[in-house]
Amino acid sequence: MENKLYFITGNINKFKEVKAMIPDVEQLDIDLVEIQELDEHKVIEHKLLEAMSHHDGKFIVEDTSLYLDCLHGLPGPYIKWFLQTIGNDGLVDITKKFNNNRAYVKVIFGCARDSKTIKYFKGEVKGRIVPVRVKSGFGWDDIFVPSGYTQTYAQMGKEEKNKISMRTIALTKLKEFLNQEKNKYNNKGDGN
Amino acid sequence: MENKLYFITGNINKFKEVKAMIPDVEQLDIDLVEIQELDEHKVIEHKLLEAMSHHDGKFIVEDTSLYLDCLHGLPGPYIKWFLQTIGNDGLVDITKKFNNNRAYVKVIFGCARDSKTIKYFKGEVKGRIVPVRVKSGFGWDDIFVPSGYTQTYAQMGKEEKNKISMRTIALTKLKEFLNQEKNKYNNKGDGN
Repeated sequence: MENKLYFITGNINKFKEVKAMIPDVEQLDIDLVEIQELDEHKVIEHKLLEAMSHHDGKFIVEDTSLYLDCLHGLPGPYIKWFLQTIGNDGLVDITKKFNNNRAYVKVIFGCARDSKTIKYFKGEVKGRIVPVRVKSGFGWDDIFVPSGYTQTYAQMGKEEKNKISMRTIALTKLKEFLNQEKNKYNNKGDGN
Repeated sequence: MENKLYFITGNINKFKEVKAMIPDVEQLDIDLVEIQELDEHKVIEHKLLEAMSHHDGKFIVEDTSLYLDCLHGLPGPYIKWFLQTIGNDGLVDITKKFNNNRAYVKVIFGCARDSKTIKYFKGEVKGRIVPVRVKSGFGWDDIFVPSGYTQTYAQMGKEEKNKISMRTIALTKLKEFLNQEKNKYNNKGDGN
């Protein structure tokens, strides 16, 4: 049995963020199908099952979504396609037209070795959408201000953002789970 | 080699529409993955390849999309998810807020026996989005008025709608293609 732990992503920045918290993870850059689903768990499950069918090991995949209050939760997991078509300015425009800029952002990590052991780890942050102030090149980081703050993610230093980001919240839960797993196996004394 | 022609759909109304134009088609109700893609051709290609990997025969699949001018083309193939979240009233609301109700609707049929022979047949109709007048139960039929008409698809009789619908346009092209194929094979005299 392959004991390696892989984070499947083509995004080196996301990989570095995960690696910083979970040092023994390795990057696996393979294309996985993203299915149309509003429930991110199903998107993640499909990716994990596809990864398992091609590779051995333990896998981590991630899904990020953004929910606009004025669109009853859209775009959700379709945020990528909203950014590709209407961009940050289009998202801001929608919240202006509806006079409601409430939003929340979510990251879910899925982790599994096989189809029976899929676990999900969620991080969610509430906030609001504001016009672009500085451009970071990280999608909607430029227009999202977390609740209790006055700066966008893009305006914050990376360190400050990482302290409070939805990815850190989810990653902390994932790390805890992996440590528990490791201790469980170590206590068994057989390493399996 | 299986010579049957299947239209893959769980929607009996769509199947009847196709069957009326292409009598020798049979319904195949299997779940195919819909991938996240703004290009419907890729969504269709993925479905056809998945169908081929499980069944023998010649397959037809269909993708319907709706494009709002005010959202630079969104929702496109994601129309299903917009309807599930914000519904027809939500779509109408967006066009009102943006003061632009221009839209177009598109149907693409994909047809193939194997991965090298995928053909696409497109029907497109321009129009505008209006508030619901009568409820048909057929998604955005209730809010779409084709250019040159004053009634929504839902208000038109089924016969009148079918005369001008984007599905009929695409289906006419598909039928023509299938007839040409049939004649070609018949002239060869071997039926293959």
